[in-house]
Amino acid sequence: MTQASNKDRVWIFDTTLRDGEQSPGATMTHDEKLEIASLLDEMGVDIIEAGFPIASEGDFKAVSEIAQNSKNSMICGLARANFADIDRCWEAVRHAAQPRIHTFIGTSPLHRAIPNLTQDEMAEKIHETVSHARNLCDNVQWSPMDATRTEWDYLARVVEIAIKAGASTINIPDTVGYTAPIESADLIRRLIAEVPGADEVIFATHCHNDLGMATANSLAAVAGGARQIECTINGLGERAGNTALEEVVMAMKVRGDIMPYYTEIDTTKVMNISRRVATVSGFAVQFNKAIVGKNAFAHESGIHQDGMLKNPENFEIMRPEDVGLAGSSLPLGKHSGRAALRDKLGQLGMEVGDNQLKDIFVRFKELADRKKEVYDDDIVALVRAGEDPENDRLQIVSMKVVCGTGGPAEATIEMDVDGKEVIATEQGDGPVDASFKAIRKIHPNTARLQLYQVNAVTEGTDAQATVSVRLEEDGVIATGQSANTDTVVASAKAYVHALNRLLIRREKSGPGVDAREISYKDVT
Amino acid sequence: MTQASNKDRVWIFDTTLRDGEQSPGATMTHDEKLEIASLLDEMGVDIIEAGFPIASEGDFKAVSEIAQNSKNSMICGLARANFADIDRCWEAVRHAAQPRIHTFIGTSPLHRAIPNLTQDEMAEKIHETVSHARNLCDNVQWSPMDATRTEWDYLARVVEIAIKAGASTINIPDTVGYTAPIESADLIRRLIAEVPGADEVIFATHCHNDLGMATANSLAAVAGGARQIECTINGLGERAGNTALEEVVMAMKVRGDIMPYYTEIDTTKVMNISRRVATVSGFAVQFNKAIVGKNAFAHESGIHQDGMLKNPENFEIMRPEDVGLAGSSLPLGKHSGRAALRDKLGQLGMEVGDNQLKDIFVRFKELADRKKEVYDDDIVALVRAGEDPENDRLQIVSMKVVCGTGGPAEATIEMDVDGKEVIATEQGDGPVDASFKAIRKIHPNTARLQLYQVNAVTEGTDAQATVSVRLEEDGVIATGQSANTDTVVASAKAYVHALNRLLIRREKSGPGVDAREISYKDVT
Repeated sequence: MTQASNKDRVWIFDTTLRDGEQSPGATMTHDEKLEIASLLDEMGVDIIEAGFPIASEGDFKAVSEIAQNSKNSMICGLARANFADIDRCWEAVRHAAQPRIHTFIGTSPLHRAIPNLTQDEMAEKIHETVSHARNLCDNVQWSPMDATRTEWDYLARVVEIAIKAGASTINIPDTVGYTAPIESADLIRRLIAEVPGADEVIFATHCHNDLGMATANSLAAVAGGARQIECTINGLGERAGNTALEEVVMAMKVRGDIMPYYTEIDTTKVMNISRRVATVSGFAVQFNKAIVGKNAFAHESGIHQDGMLKNPENFEIMRPEDVGLAGSSLPLGKHSGRAALRDKLGQLGMEVGDNQLKDIFVRFKELADRKKEVYDDDIVALVRAGEDPENDRLQIVSMKVVCGTGGPAEATIEMDVDGKEVIATEQGDGPVDASFKAIRKIHPNTARLQLYQVNAVTEGTDAQATVSVRLEEDGVIATGQSANTDTVVASAKAYVHALNRLLIRREKSGPGVDAREISYKDVT
Repeated sequence: MTQASNKDRVWIFDTTLRDGEQSPGATMTHDEKLEIASLLDEMGVDIIEAGFPIASEGDFKAVSEIAQNSKNSMICGLARANFADIDRCWEAVRHAAQPRIHTFIGTSPLHRAIPNLTQDEMAEKIHETVSHARNLCDNVQWSPMDATRTEWDYLARVVEIAIKAGASTINIPDTVGYTAPIESADLIRRLIAEVPGADEVIFATHCHNDLGMATANSLAAVAGGARQIECTINGLGERAGNTALEEVVMAMKVRGDIMPYYTEIDTTKVMNISRRVATVSGFAVQFNKAIVGKNAFAHESGIHQDGMLKNPENFEIMRPEDVGLAGSSLPLGKHSGRAALRDKLGQLGMEVGDNQLKDIFVRFKELADRKKEVYDDDIVALVRAGEDPENDRLQIVSMKVVCGTGGPAEATIEMDVDGKEVIATEQGDGPVDASFKAIRKIHPNTARLQLYQVNAVTEGTDAQATVSVRLEEDGVIATGQSANTDTVVASAKAYVHALNRLLIRREKSGPGVDAREISYKDVT
């Protein structure tokens, strides 16, 4: 509404926290979900699908709290086609200034076969459940899962039923990523033209990227009349993921000439949230990913191109600044002061309070003593790594590891456990295995290591390594991170970080809080 | 030609070795290029663009040797619009059974401005250079770079000139990844309809993925009449990369109902070549990448899904076997014999000779002693890591590293250098930095570390880590890899591996062989 009035608004519905988070291995903690929701809200996302409230106690709490904290975004929860799901969803989203219930059922022949419903029985169920949702909440979205593989006549029939029952948004999911753009546009166009009442609702498109066409399919759906795109940051999601928010938003911006639409997204916040989602999900973004990959902008390559690059327009259709990449900026060093650090944090879209700045500055100085040039990515890692509270129950006091080709690695680790110092020495296959064993000797646990990932933050062997460790114990999942120029130290600290978070989650909510009580597969 | 005769054949033109390899940071060595070319040839790629012969002596040699070794694929080289480029290209590709010269010039207003040519002057140049290429080679491809930003009238005019001058393939590049599918289809359709002689040539589409639509744009171009798709493995390429071969090929296969086309690609070879390109380029594939990402197939998630997954068709439109992913297979262990290992290698698409099997089996047993379960990915890493020749000039005999929080890390490394044992101890920031310093003390060099990357191969802290190290010295680039359960040992060995390859390249060709003598930016 703020932009060119000759353009139609497209609503951005972000499902990073629901469809993205249910991607195997991408589970986020409660605090991470709240943080991502807050970043999405600040970025101008119209609707945040915050979770699937009945799936677990943890999902319910996350959706409730995100709803309570929401500022401008509408907060939506997912519910299957039954009253219990819908009621639970409403209990969670009702706290939002703008709540929405999103209910769905699989309408294709394959999906109808599972509950073994006839077309008529399913139609009746749709009528009942959408009506029920509408009685609780003014704002109801309905989805026929696997719509693109549903028979046209039946799809038109159930869409009409959902509209009559009070749904104000009809979402058409391409659940298996099967569609081509021309079909995607035609399907929406035909629904709008032929279904009675279709002109009174908003049609949404929800695409998966199995054949690499999610972005094109979403934009084609908009050309066909859809005015809501469902997407995730970095295209996170099951299998090949969902439509990437950054791609559809930037495509409409760059190609406004043939796509006369606008969104309310502040695209300069894209890079920061992309980095954050990559970190908390453990799903790194490939270098050649559109918009947010390390190589997406020519100037980022680090290679000074001659001739042709005197005019960047020759090869760049977007400016790095448009997505929140600061122009090529100089690295900081050990002579950089607090003001320079604060400036840099601002450029990186990371606003910090005075206390946090003080803490970051101390660690920045430590790093600058060890490392000649401190790059933007180093700073990002520094800020992220410092987010562990100082009152962690488990802390590494000191560690020494000996490894090499001469036999098993040996780690001696001294830890502070609830105020007591404990020391242990263990051997293992490599320095990381030995360190983790020593930590397990000090703090016995049965947590299973789901992910262990090392990323060099910048170039050089004296670069910081960021290590991510994801643990799972009795269905509770926690991720720990740490950055250090010593990979082995970073690994041990990330492991302890994750263990502390497992402890916190247990204290808060007892065991099993996040175990998926129902299959998460049962969704769009 | 082997498939359904009611379908049109689409030619697959792979440019992993040219447009992919010129991606900043993705430089491949000579041997890697030959290996990838051979895999592409075996997979059924119709045309391999093997390089840009005039760019450097290294490129020239790679294209020549690939041409000599080619079996079924046509071998193509790139040349700018001048006689020297075209002659050099012909000298390299002429060795192939089926050679092709690909010459291009930037035709959009932005690109015409650089050589400062009028429309008429450029038209004359196109006529001269295509004619010259045609005099050398029967098979000439011509590309108007930045075609999608070239004025229609001028584009139609120069395409006609190129056809008249003898080009048999006209490639229409979307150099900046700017196009939407509908435009992509319309442009090809209109060229075929309106340009005299267009019905006698093959039109090709060459898309970049800046807005995430390269796959859809390529397929739309085919719908518009193009019959050659230019693409790369994993979508490797500058910025957001090129069209991904695996996506267009699988999309045509899965959606044969609406895309009545076929290719000669053996899709079961896709995963193996994808992994190999990821390794040699250092460009890892993100988990949620379409077709070749770790999560692309639901069954790969490692999470046992209930209910819904009893019928995989519900969520899978392709079978993992279609792209060469073996079905969920049991890990090997220390009791597995040589036959089991050979079977497993076969399943993974890695055929090995008896000698190589013997060597791999020894290392497999060593690994199985340290690691309870040896997964498919462990095996892949094992095979790849063993590819260093035994006659390397530099070899690590033993190493010991002490690191931790108590001060700088210290590495003592004993190496065999041309048959002499040398030992050195150095301190550094972390165990990797200390190790590299000790190696540099033993073998002084000025190589710059361009990439240092650690990937855990499978789950668990006793997992093998694969370390990739890319070094650059005086314009020569070499990549080293090593896999070990000890990350620090793997890092040191990967570094030494890369140093050995730098030495080999120097011996072969003197210094500076691969320095880019001309800007690589000057291409489609």
